[in-house]
Amino acid sequence: MADKTIPYKIYLKENEIPDRWYNVRADMKKKPAPLLNPGTLKPLKAEELTPIFCEELVAQELNDTDAWIQIPQEIQDFYRMYRPSPLVRAYCLEKALDTPAKIYYKFEGNNTSGSHKLNSAIAQAYYAKQQGLKGVTTETGAGQWGTALSMACSYFGLDCKVYMVKVSYEQKPFRREVMRTYGASVTPSPSDTTEVGRKILQAHPGTTGSLGCAISEAVEVATHNEGYRYVLGSVLNQVLLHQSVIGLEAKAAMDKYDIKPDMIIGCAGGGSNLGGLISPFMGEKLKGEADYQFIAVEPASCPSFTRGKYAYDFCDTGMICPLAKMYTLGSSFIPSANHAGGLRFHGMSTVLSELYDQGLMEARAVEQTSVFKAAEQFARVEGILPAPESSHAIKVAIDEAMKCKETGEEKTILFGLTGTGYFDMVAYEQFHNGTMVDYIPTDEDLAQGFAGIPSFPGNEF
Amino acid sequence: MADKTIPYKIYLKENEIPDRWYNVRADMKKKPAPLLNPGTLKPLKAEELTPIFCEELVAQELNDTDAWIQIPQEIQDFYRMYRPSPLVRAYCLEKALDTPAKIYYKFEGNNTSGSHKLNSAIAQAYYAKQQGLKGVTTETGAGQWGTALSMACSYFGLDCKVYMVKVSYEQKPFRREVMRTYGASVTPSPSDTTEVGRKILQAHPGTTGSLGCAISEAVEVATHNEGYRYVLGSVLNQVLLHQSVIGLEAKAAMDKYDIKPDMIIGCAGGGSNLGGLISPFMGEKLKGEADYQFIAVEPASCPSFTRGKYAYDFCDTGMICPLAKMYTLGSSFIPSANHAGGLRFHGMSTVLSELYDQGLMEARAVEQTSVFKAAEQFARVEGILPAPESSHAIKVAIDEAMKCKETGEEKTILFGLTGTGYFDMVAYEQFHNGTMVDYIPTDEDLAQGFAGIPSFPGNEF
Repeated sequence: MADKTIPYKIYLKENEIPDRWYNVRADMKKKPAPLLNPGTLKPLKAEELTPIFCEELVAQELNDTDAWIQIPQEIQDFYRMYRPSPLVRAYCLEKALDTPAKIYYKFEGNNTSGSHKLNSAIAQAYYAKQQGLKGVTTETGAGQWGTALSMACSYFGLDCKVYMVKVSYEQKPFRREVMRTYGASVTPSPSDTTEVGRKILQAHPGTTGSLGCAISEAVEVATHNEGYRYVLGSVLNQVLLHQSVIGLEAKAAMDKYDIKPDMIIGCAGGGSNLGGLISPFMGEKLKGEADYQFIAVEPASCPSFTRGKYAYDFCDTGMICPLAKMYTLGSSFIPSANHAGGLRFHGMSTVLSELYDQGLMEARAVEQTSVFKAAEQFARVEGILPAPESSHAIKVAIDEAMKCKETGEEKTILFGLTGTGYFDMVAYEQFHNGTMVDYIPTDEDLAQGFAGIPSFPGNEF
Repeated sequence: MADKTIPYKIYLKENEIPDRWYNVRADMKKKPAPLLNPGTLKPLKAEELTPIFCEELVAQELNDTDAWIQIPQEIQDFYRMYRPSPLVRAYCLEKALDTPAKIYYKFEGNNTSGSHKLNSAIAQAYYAKQQGLKGVTTETGAGQWGTALSMACSYFGLDCKVYMVKVSYEQKPFRREVMRTYGASVTPSPSDTTEVGRKILQAHPGTTGSLGCAISEAVEVATHNEGYRYVLGSVLNQVLLHQSVIGLEAKAAMDKYDIKPDMIIGCAGGGSNLGGLISPFMGEKLKGEADYQFIAVEPASCPSFTRGKYAYDFCDTGMICPLAKMYTLGSSFIPSANHAGGLRFHGMSTVLSELYDQGLMEARAVEQTSVFKAAEQFARVEGILPAPESSHAIKVAIDEAMKCKETGEEKTILFGLTGTGYFDMVAYEQFHNGTMVDYIPTDEDLAQGFAGIPSFPGNEF
């Protein structure tokens, strides 16, 4: 089909929104390694997870055999409020770059949470409601996940308790107010509302908190209060499953116009948006039906894929969560304070880790000033002010398009534009003022993190 | 057609985006009164306006005979980046209100400027570029218009000088950074870059600025620099013309599903979004082809329609702009500092003023705590965090839907959701904390403003 017939934005019809999620694990010959109980070092059973997580979500977490999971009607109804999201042909960016490449992006930022996080938040809230729970607890750092979960809980009338890293709580009051608008209670962490919080406050009176501490508080509240469970916005298999709606919609939209991407690019922190975007395409690759190049883009300041170890490690800094086999920098690794935005997790989705280990996808690490340069260039020609996280994918998409300009190749590039940067203007200001700095951890820095990875037979790295 | 077939969001196809603006003045039997030269009290001629405004825009400003104006292809191309905007059926809000009313809203917030302002910004930037200008100047208060203009100028490679009211510049650094991302220069007003700014700074050393002062600075820079003109984001006839794209799209989307609104509601500050939304519907009413109820919603703290005088008055506080016949509170009227968000202009579009005077539309004034209550209710069920301005329309739409619940009438309500509130979280915070107060000017307050309306034969009020 001639290019001219491809609109700027391809919207599916509402009845074309996927009614099933795609579980890429089902089509992997070598499956991701199971979660281990850190005490017994044996694979975790459902009954060990249900005190913390909702039952149906535990079932999804452990299910690596069913390729398709029906999306409940109530979730489909909610999806109609902000989905289908547009698949955009970046005509203006192509023109500005003067590249023969054809660039598409799937834009997930057109909802009040400002990101793709809502896709999983609504699913997790739904299953909590179905289980008859009163509410859920979670942690949030930058605030995208907390906002998304607040919206989802408000929709189902669930209580939502968000533990927000204290420094973010104070520096990002606007994020906090959006959550309050949706009726969530937002507590700066560490707080005196939990045992673990009180302990930390006593030991470190002036602490501004950390994601690890906020997780610990949220888990404590979930397990100590009747009718509550803990929910998490990335990393987990269930979250990748819910996020497959991104890739399924993108693929359906491309199929409509006989477009086949040569490469698919996404930013990777915990891996949920990238995993969701590539899932259906990876499924075809796994089954030998098609081939695609997949590129995960991570910050040079938190390079789990490109410089991490593939080993069993704790998912949280507090070492209370299960052990997951993943590319990791060690659970004690914390990116430099200079690092703006998310993509700060020390590890990576076990699904993506296994796919990467099998050589089915690539990874690149990029420095943040180059990321913000790409973000600004994109904003000026495409009109959307991107989130710092999403801009990692923009950076590599532009790099690849410029390679096409050199070689004359007319490659088709698809990337995930996960969200908007309206709440990240402090970072943009640093970029404009020239006070933003890059940070690449030294080998010594990384060695400290690796030293904290648990050592046991079969966990050599 | 049965309701069930109406999707949550009606999107036109890209080739259905209007290629002509509709000029409602052409179909008004009694036209809006012409602008007057404040010195001679005679109608302004084009040549008196072209030193300040772009030539083609002056022609549009004075054109009250051509009903349809072709939209240049370059503007249509830009529109494709963020238009068509969705017409949303508020199924979730209807359900929450348990009303038999059918509620629709035209959502203009899905672009980085966060509002409908971009529709006119891109047109004004285009004509400036066509005229071979180097750049444009403008003022911004809350920042929506400045952001929109920055985006538009960036697209056409025009220099953009924004004078931002100093108090906003300091209190809304994020808005400022978005403008800088688009390459605009943002100067806090009053500044030492203009003669008028230096005078004001000398007279009032600690002043935090005002919109009137920022206008004066922007106009001075435009008229004292070769290749620059001044642009304005509301009030003017040309702006209503450009904004007619909102109403034309809304009507085309409704026509597709045989939906006929009984009432059309919009917030009104200077009148551009409301004027744009109602234009094609008003055209039908003027020609006797259909009847609709039109409701302008304004803040009780700045009640130009409901408590103002219909008279010739200055458009700016500095009294350097032409005289316009409009509903006005007097050019010295400034709403209470307690008033959050925009809709602060002392006057009103001359087109809407004349339509209102002829009894063709109604107006309501609402208090801001009730507006934020409606905003929060809407956000929770419809998922979009609305701008304070837009929430005025939400408030009255909900009021009308609740009346339908009492009477059992199945009225069809259309309202304009002009933008998102991501940069207005300080106001939301005040609302959550209970520190937001309402303010209704007393008759004495208003009398002070009325005293500044110029007095001359034919200007009795």
